[in-house]
Amino acid sequence: MLDVEAFKRIVETAAFHQLIGLKLERADVEAGIAVLRQPYDPRLSIFPEAGVYHGGVIASLIDVAGAVACGLQVGRPTPTANFRVDFLKSPAKIDLLATGKVVRAGKSVSVADVEITDDKGEVYAVGRGTFSMSAVFKAIEGGGEHAKR
Amino acid sequence: MLDVEAFKRIVETAAFHQLIGLKLERADVEAGIAVLRQPYDPRLSIFPEAGVYHGGVIASLIDVAGAVACGLQVGRPTPTANFRVDFLKSPAKIDLLATGKVVRAGKSVSVADVEITDDKGEVYAVGRGTFSMSAVFKAIEGGGEHAKR
Amino acid sequence: MLDVEAFKRIVETAAFHQLIGLKLERADVEAGIAVLRQPYDPRLSIFPEAGVYHGGVIASLIDVAGAVACGLQVGRPTPTANFRVDFLKSPAKIDLLATGKVVRAGKSVSVADVEITDDKGEVYAVGRGTFSMSAVFKAIEGGGEHAKR
Amino acid sequence: MLDVEAFKRIVETAAFHQLIGLKLERADVEAGIAVLRQPYDPRLSIFPEAGVYHGGVIASLIDVAGAVACGLQVGRPTPTANFRVDFLKSPAKIDLLATGKVVRAGKSVSVADVEITDDKGEVYAVGRGTFSMSAVFKAIEGGGEHAKR
Repeated sequence: MLDVEAFKRIVETAAFHQLIGLKLERADVEAGIAVLRQPYDPRLSIFPEAGVYHGGVIASLIDVAGAVACGLQVGRPTPTANFRVDFLKSPAKIDLLATGKVVRAGKSVSVADVEITDDKGEVYAVGRGTFSMSAVFKAIEGGGEHAKR
Repeated sequence: MLDVEAFKRIVETAAFHQLIGLKLERADVEAGIAVLRQPYDPRLSIFPEAGVYHGGVIASLIDVAGAVACGLQVGRPTPTANFRVDFLKSPAKIDLLATGKVVRAGKSVSVADVEITDDKGEVYAVGRGTFSMSAVFKAIEGGGEHAKR
Repeated sequence: MLDVEAFKRIVETAAFHQLIGLKLERADVEAGIAVLRQPYDPRLSIFPEAGVYHGGVIASLIDVAGAVACGLQVGRPTPTANFRVDFLKSPAKIDLLATGKVVRAGKSVSVADVEITDDKGEVYAVGRGTFSMSAVFKAIEGGGEHAKR
Repeated sequence: MLDVEAFKRIVETAAFHQLIGLKLERADVEAGIAVLRQPYDPRLSIFPEAGVYHGGVIASLIDVAGAVACGLQVGRPTPTANFRVDFLKSPAKIDLLATGKVVRAGKSVSVADVEITDDKGEVYAVGRGTFSMSAVFKAIEGGGEHAKR
């Protein structure tokens, strides 16, 4: 049964998260909430002069924030089955926070909502996804598969 | 009016695409199709030993392949309004192809489907999104906003 | 420019809404909110003994509540481009409220969230969609097309 | 283990399907395909003079066609967890076919695509959803809940 510290370690040692600099800032297991921080890095933009975040980076935050919020409920990684992202405004040259919140905890699938904001709470994108609660997550153990959903 | 070569240049000079190594492999403007190639790089995985792609990378490919397929129809970048991604199987340690195809070309919004496959055509994820045809894409010009949708 | 009363008339005279008994309960144009009431009717269930609502009825409420919330902002019907619905719990033998709220108002597309609840506020389903602000809605005028998106 | 005939009976005796006249036209269990027919009825339109289908009816067809395609694989009803619908064109005064196809069959969740066409194959809307394979569907048995997901 993984706790917040263990999830923080998993998030922050994952190779792609190290590449982009993604951190687990805090989590509230009872409330089903996980908050990630994405420090601004021009390499995550489309063009560094404008500094606008690439949509794929925002989508990545939604994927991870939703999965961690759901995973904390069962104490192990829960693979993403699907998600939808809606881009509302384009953030540029600022840190982003991704706040994932469990909307419904199920035995086979859970649903989570994610908001992408800056430190002042302005919302730049919203996401909603389904996460597989019954799947075995193999990537951690070094197996050849991400997950058996 | 940007042609395939111009789109290839835009895709391949975008900072985030250079970070992950994403290329525009080919495109068919008439058919409304754009094909991207994502060379495997362990930094895009969750854990390099397993080599399983991070879901956020797959989502990024869907974002870009859909946007390029739609953008080619009008000869300029078309910002992503929203998309859904469904993860079907977990690819590991292989190149990925993202094939975006326009499903409906509209004046204000277009719809595109994207398949994430390997070189043999095995499907790992599917995406579907809406792209803003009437928006002005500012990121290229160095403005402070990604797009006015 | 249609006001709340005009929207109420349009909603409640639409043929499919008369078939299922859907009403516009209230709306707040400033806040971008529209609330529909769906009175329980066993014909909207899967099997009347259980009285569980058909998912398609819930999806219909999401479609309409989102469209009305967005349409009120511009004073005319705004056709639905797409939406996602997540079913959380199954309501049975009760009235449903569908509360649509504009999340982002755009020139070409707007985004709205919808919650399906009972009168006590328990949430049964959530929806999120994109609505075409620039489309001409033909169905009202008796044309052969729903909308030019 | 329910076969095609049993599914046809369930679909066609469901109260909401009787209200709108929805039929299971054919199914191919091996291929994971289910085809529904929705005969035109002016009560399913927004305004009968125009005869344009209400979006909620189209969403209902997507819900059912996806669920039946997935359910046939396991021989019992599989409740819808979520779906996305994209409206491409507005059909008016014609029968609709909804063709659901399993994209990925999983133990806990399956993914299905649905196309809404006329008899000539013209596509009016596309849907994609997730269906709970491990859930017990209570509505048939007359219980108070649609499904335990």
